[in-house]
Amino acid sequence: MREVYVAGVGMTKFGRSEFKSQLELFGEAAMDAINESNLKPKDIEALFVGNANGDINEGITVLASHAAAEIGLNHVPAIKLEGACSSGTVAIVNAFMWIASGYADIVLASGCERNTVTPTADATRLMNSGNHHRYEAGTGITFPGLFAMMCHMYSHKYNIPLPQLKEYMCMVAMKAHKNGAKNPKAQFQKEITREQYVNSAMIASPLQMFDCCPISDGASAMVVCSKEVAKKLTNKPVQIVGVGQASSGGLSTQKDYSRPIAREISVQKAYKMAGLTPKDINVVELHDCFTIAEIVASEGLGLFDFGTGGQALARGETQIGGRMPINPSGGLKSKGHPVGATGIAQGYEIVNQLRGICGQRQVEGAKIGLTDTLGGPFASIANIIYKRGW
Amino acid sequence: MREVYVAGVGMTKFGRSEFKSQLELFGEAAMDAINESNLKPKDIEALFVGNANGDINEGITVLASHAAAEIGLNHVPAIKLEGACSSGTVAIVNAFMWIASGYADIVLASGCERNTVTPTADATRLMNSGNHHRYEAGTGITFPGLFAMMCHMYSHKYNIPLPQLKEYMCMVAMKAHKNGAKNPKAQFQKEITREQYVNSAMIASPLQMFDCCPISDGASAMVVCSKEVAKKLTNKPVQIVGVGQASSGGLSTQKDYSRPIAREISVQKAYKMAGLTPKDINVVELHDCFTIAEIVASEGLGLFDFGTGGQALARGETQIGGRMPINPSGGLKSKGHPVGATGIAQGYEIVNQLRGICGQRQVEGAKIGLTDTLGGPFASIANIIYKRGW
Repeated sequence: MREVYVAGVGMTKFGRSEFKSQLELFGEAAMDAINESNLKPKDIEALFVGNANGDINEGITVLASHAAAEIGLNHVPAIKLEGACSSGTVAIVNAFMWIASGYADIVLASGCERNTVTPTADATRLMNSGNHHRYEAGTGITFPGLFAMMCHMYSHKYNIPLPQLKEYMCMVAMKAHKNGAKNPKAQFQKEITREQYVNSAMIASPLQMFDCCPISDGASAMVVCSKEVAKKLTNKPVQIVGVGQASSGGLSTQKDYSRPIAREISVQKAYKMAGLTPKDINVVELHDCFTIAEIVASEGLGLFDFGTGGQALARGETQIGGRMPINPSGGLKSKGHPVGATGIAQGYEIVNQLRGICGQRQVEGAKIGLTDTLGGPFASIANIIYKRGW
Repeated sequence: MREVYVAGVGMTKFGRSEFKSQLELFGEAAMDAINESNLKPKDIEALFVGNANGDINEGITVLASHAAAEIGLNHVPAIKLEGACSSGTVAIVNAFMWIASGYADIVLASGCERNTVTPTADATRLMNSGNHHRYEAGTGITFPGLFAMMCHMYSHKYNIPLPQLKEYMCMVAMKAHKNGAKNPKAQFQKEITREQYVNSAMIASPLQMFDCCPISDGASAMVVCSKEVAKKLTNKPVQIVGVGQASSGGLSTQKDYSRPIAREISVQKAYKMAGLTPKDINVVELHDCFTIAEIVASEGLGLFDFGTGGQALARGETQIGGRMPINPSGGLKSKGHPVGATGIAQGYEIVNQLRGICGQRQVEGAKIGLTDTLGGPFASIANIIYKRGW
């Protein structure tokens, strides 16, 4: 397989998009990534768009073809990929294959979503389509409910009393908002206090409002290319050294919600391809759709032993400046979560961290970064490992 | 790039699926393809599912992950791809890249759809989401209306009076039903007469009922693998020697509906990769969603000069036994059109034609076959060229 590099990245500010459509959000992020790569739209050979619910939300199918036309991509192959919240990272995985195979030299991986206009009653109802439609979606289970169960299972399994676990979860939320306050693209650029967290509305016990990420509008994009092309386009090279992806079925097929099996299979594939271990990682963007999800993911990725993620967090290890900084961008929790755009926005942060241009939220000396994106009831997980330099 | 082969294919009978869900239809086709390849589900390394409207029709997202679990695929990367009616062929294109790159040795490309349960008022309304949601979908344009316009544009451009064009279109319909009558997987296994055609209901002038394909339920699957693996699995080898894909934007970006530009770009990529020309093709499965679409596609693929597809048809060249047999399966018109499953069902027919096992509808001596699948308002087109032997 050929080596694969990132030439440029782009993203919109995440939040609520009252007037801009998904396609317009896509166009903004895509043109940023293309411009940053010193390219023109005509140079792009294929387009991948991660998108979960664009057809339901805005009534649009063949989204990727319309997206290509939106910015004048010249009749390129245009492919929409859907893996619920993992859609964006799935787009990068497939863009990687097109370059690695030698079929193409320059492709654009992107993601976009406009959830705040969903015609379903609310985002929770929309998201529920990720659960098995015949056996589970109709039971009343919701994603907040699912991750609340994750808290209880985790608490019980590792003998961590719920009040203690809630302290850890509060730390996740406060860290997310502290980092997000330094990110001009974040939906919430405001720190929160322990008091605000504790007094926030109960959503699905023990999850309170500040345990939950928002459902946002936004887009992100990444120009992925061969090494030969990257040499001509950038002097801040970042290589994609590992990709992994794995799946699981509905909740009834999974025994332990505190340890989604697909994550461990996916990330091990990425580590193996990269020839790296968790110890080699300097910065991580992972799927903190709920605060408990960050703790669970940090363990599944091999960054901390199982049952010890909360303690590592309490020791400050996941802060910027800590041993293993997690979600310096603010994560889904503070930066926002426009479903299909999330995976590539994680890549946007990691690429810029490895380039050393993240200003106040820079992880000093970061050379290798990892992203983790989870879709549905732990049903689709994809991981990418990025590395600075040639 | 590595060489890529087909080890096995499967498909359900197309038609109306009253009780089986999309996932169950998928499982039936997938297991047929896996069994035919002398494999077990555990041997599959990645799953691609072409599906256009499963979330709207059955309320299911992360479809590919649920599909993997349905047949016990072992936590494989599972990817849903959407390019409207071209989704299935897009799945093959991406499966091809995973094998060609060397990342995987055995992957399953599949497609499924269950349209007859759509909660939208009708299929025409559902399909309309393929039109540009902001500028075109709301104008009243429908796909029958669009292909009716194609008739008028074609008639005017090539100076073929509409009654003459209708004669050609009638021949397309009669040929489709004649071939479909010999296909046990076809939705309509019954020949039609000229009288039945002429007296059928007017849908969108000049399109009558027998000019329009049905919207069906069904699934299809194809095991795609490296040459090394294929040598162990099959003694009826079929190679994927060319793949092509291209896109266009909404209708307002396209000047001549009688010559969709994306098709010419896509198929030329496939011919180039294969080192072949239209003259080398022995059998074709192309996207006859409406009778006029078959004539237009046969020209765009380079099989006949522009404006002469009808005459070639009238000379019998596209019949089984003719110079360039088109849609021996019965095509979308008679075999049925379960959107996401259509592209791989075309591959199913071509693979079996090249194996020489199509019985009454066999194209004698077929060695090289071409498929053509069109999605949305000519917005996504993908082509595959298959070749018999090592």
